Amino acid sequence: MAFRKIINDPVYGYITIDNALIFQIISHPYYQRLRRIKQMALAHLVYPGAVHTRLHHSLGAYHLMSQALTELKGKGVELSADEETAAKIAILLHDIGHGPFSHALEHVLIENMHHEELSLLLMNRLNLEFKGALNTAIEIFTDTYPKKFLHQLVSGQLDVDRMDYLTRDSFFTGVSEGVVGYDRLIKMLTVHKGELMVEEKAIYSIEKFLVARRLMYWQVYLHKTVLSAEMMLVKLLERVKELGVRGDMDMAADDPLNMFLLGKTAGDMEKDLDLFTQLDDTDVVANIKKWSRHEDRILRLLSEALQNRRLFKLRLQAMPIDQEEVEGRREKAMLATGVSAEDAKYLVFTGEAVNSLYNPNDEGIHILFKDGTVRNISSVDNALIHQNLSRPVKKFYICYLGA
Amino acid sequence: MAFRKIINDPVYGYITIDNALIFQIISHPYYQRLRRIKQMALAHLVYPGAVHTRLHHSLGAYHLMSQALTELKGKGVELSADEETAAKIAILLHDIGHGPFSHALEHVLIENMHHEELSLLLMNRLNLEFKGALNTAIEIFTDTYPKKFLHQLVSGQLDVDRMDYLTRDSFFTGVSEGVVGYDRLIKMLTVHKGELMVEEKAIYSIEKFLVARRLMYWQVYLHKTVLSAEMMLVKLLERVKELGVRGDMDMAADDPLNMFLLGKTAGDMEKDLDLFTQLDDTDVVANIKKWSRHEDRILRLLSEALQNRRLFKLRLQAMPIDQEEVEGRREKAMLATGVSAEDAKYLVFTGEAVNSLYNPNDEGIHILFKDGTVRNISSVDNALIHQNLSRPVKKFYICYLGA
Amino acid sequence: MAFRKIINDPVYGYITIDNALIFQIISHPYYQRLRRIKQMALAHLVYPGAVHTRLHHSLGAYHLMSQALTELKGKGVELSADEETAAKIAILLHDIGHGPFSHALEHVLIENMHHEELSLLLMNRLNLEFKGALNTAIEIFTDTYPKKFLHQLVSGQLDVDRMDYLTRDSFFTGVSEGVVGYDRLIKMLTVHKGELMVEEKAIYSIEKFLVARRLMYWQVYLHKTVLSAEMMLVKLLERVKELGVRGDMDMAADDPLNMFLLGKTAGDMEKDLDLFTQLDDTDVVANIKKWSRHEDRILRLLSEALQNRRLFKLRLQAMPIDQEEVEGRREKAMLATGVSAEDAKYLVFTGEAVNSLYNPNDEGIHILFKDGTVRNISSVDNALIHQNLSRPVKKFYICYLGA
Amino acid sequence: MAFRKIINDPVYGYITIDNALIFQIISHPYYQRLRRIKQMALAHLVYPGAVHTRLHHSLGAYHLMSQALTELKGKGVELSADEETAAKIAILLHDIGHGPFSHALEHVLIENMHHEELSLLLMNRLNLEFKGALNTAIEIFTDTYPKKFLHQLVSGQLDVDRMDYLTRDSFFTGVSEGVVGYDRLIKMLTVHKGELMVEEKAIYSIEKFLVARRLMYWQVYLHKTVLSAEMMLVKLLERVKELGVRGDMDMAADDPLNMFLLGKTAGDMEKDLDLFTQLDDTDVVANIKKWSRHEDRILRLLSEALQNRRLFKLRLQAMPIDQEEVEGRREKAMLATGVSAEDAKYLVFTGEAVNSLYNPNDEGIHILFKDGTVRNISSVDNALIHQNLSRPVKKFYICYLGA
Repeated sequence: MAFRKIINDPVYGYITIDNALIFQIISHPYYQRLRRIKQMALAHLVYPGAVHTRLHHSLGAYHLMSQALTELKGKGVELSADEETAAKIAILLHDIGHGPFSHALEHVLIENMHHEELSLLLMNRLNLEFKGALNTAIEIFTDTYPKKFLHQLVSGQLDVDRMDYLTRDSFFTGVSEGVVGYDRLIKMLTVHKGELMVEEKAIYSIEKFLVARRLMYWQVYLHKTVLSAEMMLVKLLERVKELGVRGDMDMAADDPLNMFLLGKTAGDMEKDLDLFTQLDDTDVVANIKKWSRHEDRILRLLSEALQNRRLFKLRLQAMPIDQEEVEGRREKAMLATGVSAEDAKYLVFTGEAVNSLYNPNDEGIHILFKDGTVRNISSVDNALIHQNLSRPVKKFYICYLGA
Repeated sequence: MAFRKIINDPVYGYITIDNALIFQIISHPYYQRLRRIKQMALAHLVYPGAVHTRLHHSLGAYHLMSQALTELKGKGVELSADEETAAKIAILLHDIGHGPFSHALEHVLIENMHHEELSLLLMNRLNLEFKGALNTAIEIFTDTYPKKFLHQLVSGQLDVDRMDYLTRDSFFTGVSEGVVGYDRLIKMLTVHKGELMVEEKAIYSIEKFLVARRLMYWQVYLHKTVLSAEMMLVKLLERVKELGVRGDMDMAADDPLNMFLLGKTAGDMEKDLDLFTQLDDTDVVANIKKWSRHEDRILRLLSEALQNRRLFKLRLQAMPIDQEEVEGRREKAMLATGVSAEDAKYLVFTGEAVNSLYNPNDEGIHILFKDGTVRNISSVDNALIHQNLSRPVKKFYICYLGA
Repeated sequence: MAFRKIINDPVYGYITIDNALIFQIISHPYYQRLRRIKQMALAHLVYPGAVHTRLHHSLGAYHLMSQALTELKGKGVELSADEETAAKIAILLHDIGHGPFSHALEHVLIENMHHEELSLLLMNRLNLEFKGALNTAIEIFTDTYPKKFLHQLVSGQLDVDRMDYLTRDSFFTGVSEGVVGYDRLIKMLTVHKGELMVEEKAIYSIEKFLVARRLMYWQVYLHKTVLSAEMMLVKLLERVKELGVRGDMDMAADDPLNMFLLGKTAGDMEKDLDLFTQLDDTDVVANIKKWSRHEDRILRLLSEALQNRRLFKLRLQAMPIDQEEVEGRREKAMLATGVSAEDAKYLVFTGEAVNSLYNPNDEGIHILFKDGTVRNISSVDNALIHQNLSRPVKKFYICYLGA
Repeated sequence: MAFRKIINDPVYGYITIDNALIFQIISHPYYQRLRRIKQMALAHLVYPGAVHTRLHHSLGAYHLMSQALTELKGKGVELSADEETAAKIAILLHDIGHGPFSHALEHVLIENMHHEELSLLLMNRLNLEFKGALNTAIEIFTDTYPKKFLHQLVSGQLDVDRMDYLTRDSFFTGVSEGVVGYDRLIKMLTVHKGELMVEEKAIYSIEKFLVARRLMYWQVYLHKTVLSAEMMLVKLLERVKELGVRGDMDMAADDPLNMFLLGKTAGDMEKDLDLFTQLDDTDVVANIKKWSRHEDRILRLLSEALQNRRLFKLRLQAMPIDQEEVEGRREKAMLATGVSAEDAKYLVFTGEAVNSLYNPNDEGIHILFKDGTVRNISSVDNALIHQNLSRPVKKFYICYLGA
């Protein structure tokens, strides 16, 4: 009998694994590690249901890839069984390079490397282990495979990655307005001259998709309390690094998180890869509990605040933050806590939040009309996604220890 | 023990009736008639689940009104028990004046009267029967009650009527993208200087609401096949009228539908009201079955087509339909069916479909900011609902007997 | 490009039709007639959402058949493309023989024929029209096809018919407790020695399925108010027949419903089949409106009551109804309405409601254990579905004009 | 304006907090700790969505308590505002005494104390801090408050605790068959002579509730793979204790988990309470990562297996496990791993899993009939919950390192 496993998923019902290689990859410790990385970092501090994991998201994206490929084949797009498996593996592993708290800590732990580069390093490692079985998957992932639409399904304006994360994040947060109608979008996918596009009658669904995404960004991902928590976490780790430089951190030498924070690794990611795969959210959370008893006041304060959800206030606004306000709030923080002016920067700080709804210049969303013409979503009649909206929206924030 | 009935609703779970007067109104034959009028006319020919009724929609809107009032009271808005009951009655009866196939046949059966005027006539009739118990409800309905926000909940940019119909129509059609997040919108409602508005943090939900509505219009309400069926129904009834004028309709004299179509009523709606309350969808459907055996070729053709879902083709476009195309298609229809040039107008015809997303000039949606200022949704930062979109969108269609 | 239509379904998302013959059958007037027959007869008088149609249910069952066949093929069961199509056609047409108000009026309109026999007559008629393309479908439907499990999927303890109606009726009534987990059941289906059975790990799902069915029967299908309405409808049509025999019904001679009720048809179903296919719910509803103005007091009373939902009271109990109570209530009804003792039988009457949860003697549900043994669900360890419960449950009712 | 916070919940939509004291309790570190304790321990290894927390469950149970109290008041049950708040606090804190991995590790970390006793200790501690504001809540929790039904809502056959956990666990695992219809159950609650019971028409819902619970136990909570993982975790911690006794564990002295495992606490829970409130799931997970590099082979093997989801096989059966099988499997494990006969007990072991569906002797579920009589659910006509089923079901299992 054919290989066949089913996994319950509250979002899609059942996810079917019907390929032994895919099951082996899922069973690999690299992939299992994603169980210990939350998909939405600290968003659960505002949306208590949002504790789902990168593993769950990857499985979901894999499921949507399976559906999308079935749909395209039903429409006459030619695909071999190997290409199907490869596309599924590519999406399954697209996030394998994420570290603790994913985006929230990206570039804090591993300074000069994007998580997608890490994903590729790990895919190469797995490819060695699986004796080249991931060759095509890696070509698709790196967009060197001739059937370009396969890469676009993994990473593009209409990829199954964002279809899943918007759907799943909306589901687990309970923000039902984020629902994107992934099933209709998938039914509307088509391939024209090797490129992924959507049928004409999907126009309103695409608009809905982009608007739901805009809503999820401002209401959830960049929610002021979520942003506050995530920026506090960044500040906390920066403090650890600073104390480390000063020699004021006395930490277990074999703790992988410490090694990365204190610069005790080889400094070459190829060599540090094993160490990296030992990291996950629990290292950060467990250390925060310890640091909440540390002698450094700033470290203790930030750790206790995160541990017990006593978060800094944060205000978003269209204009840059007035420097006077920053100074004033820092003075208050100094008075309240007795820290130095230098250290007050950990308690009062500013930054920018940017969200680009849709950039038509950057590889856009293409509509295939019944008469065979192809147009960009932003240039159809009565387009909702007009010039103004396709520019990125930038907001400025100040985050500060409250009264 | 207090009066208490619960009704299962697949959309909201349970609807509670905890007032004896409201239960009496629901039990009245005028209200029960709404069971026999489909909410979405002929949309079920495309979306087979869309067979829900005006009665169900009214109950749903009543439920949302109950929730909205509870929410507003929780925020300190003053409301007496009588005002609450009145607002609930007003929404319960807002659609009582709809005739067969609601909007699709509005102005075809009852030529010079809008369904809201008919609703008012029927509310007055009920008020007599219930000895003035509907006085306040009628004031709210006609916007003569001092607390203006109560009328705005019944009829306005953010009324519970459209919250329910968008939610319910989306639910029963299975067009999940039409979901509007009514629960969050209701949580965000507030009253400022007697007017209904929403809190600042609802901005993205409002945008989502307007975009979902836009999608429902073009994808569902004005779906080309739905539009075709509904316009064919209009043509069919026009044909009946024409044959009646010619004396070619031999119909039962006591059939209420016939009486309205053939102008055999008193011609004064006050007097015709009893007759009107005997009309519902089944009169039309049952007569169509008879007409499909009628000797008039046009009447038979339209009736059979509607009965068996063999619908005319319909094309929507941005530009007016070329008259040459119309003539060409009429000639083809004449050849195919043997009807006269005059009669071919029933088989090939044109029209316009209009949808206004949001009109900021007409009483807009107001946002109450935390600092107490009030702004229109179309003038906030990075507004999605820009100038361009707030103009009504008009499309032109041609509907014709296919090859 | 391959044939491909998708239909929105609120229950399953999308239903795909990818076969031209199946689309032709769906487009046939015989099938389109099912749009005008409600799946749950008068249950909508209690559950206002329950207005879905036989057409919708048949499409849903077709969808589940497609899923079940895909699942079985995935498990190595051999099936040709023709067999697949045939099984799908068989389920699509399984209810084509239902008349107005389906079960509620079965044997009232067409006295000596079960709806399945009518379905077969109509399938044969379609088979002629489609030049034998339905041969295999008819063999599956009549259980004469060698692969017995195909018939069991159409009609058996685990058929997709009841999976769909329980799921769909639960969905549209809003009785969420009736949810049966059809997706898991389908994933657990298997074929052993040509017979349909379920895998061992489905035991609890099967129990849940049977208990949900029990709940749906007593809470929905046999709800006392639903039962009252449906029995009143039966009495009403019996009255029409009686008046017809007496010559007191003056009805349009060409009205198909009248012809069946007054015995004016050929009396041979083969010959009456065309007439039968003109019947649907609207004939009954439209006539009830007319009969509510009829001179016969009983007919008028029952018609008005049904039209305006002023239903008789009904009480279910474990013991037969005491004849004294019946007599007492009839006397009251005579006093209240002035009808004769003979006619009071239309206003006060008794009956039985029977529901069999699961009958293990009658072709049971078989479990295929991992070790290859097969056992009946009622004989596994700690069986919930024990001896006692597998007996049919009979309840007695009295239905009467209330005070 | 009144105090008012809303929290998004994917299960119920929105949870409203409208009381400042309740918000303070939720904000307390004791309560926030529940964010770091998974509701379903290791069930997420089988059901990847099941990563929701004790905090989320407690909030959900609080929400259902609010609904239940509103319903009861609507039915005329007298309740003061203080009693309402107290009942809500009692349910909010009912699980506050859970330690890491809740039930899975109960009695392993804290040997002689049930989590409910710990909850009470912590509630007393909070009561001191809040200056007696929790007095009534504690009386309700300990069943010393005169209105007994309030305690029954917190802990009893129909408490909101199990209504929430069955609903929530079903939701997050995606096992839709576990849905219990909490909303209908709550609508059916009533109070008779001070005791909580349900109305007659809830009988089928109650049956459904008990059967859904039975399904959740065998299909989810006692799923063989979940049971395997949780028993492996128990064995792992037992190994740590054993190594500790032997002096072979060299662990950080200030690690709270180590202190409990190695018996370095005061040994008096009143005194150890602060230490206890520092424990959560992350301590266990972070330590497992360290132990997977420990020199002890057994500890390393169990840690690696849990970390990478390479779980032991487990078989459940009706009869006790044959001792010969145990011996045989131990010998194999010794050969495969080179451990001693003594240590092989960590790799091959047996146990019992027990689930009691419903015990009618133990305070049962009472039905209040319309005629005022009260009967136990197991003694109504055609009871599904018969004698046989109300006995606890015991299964035996063997868990072993696979080939």
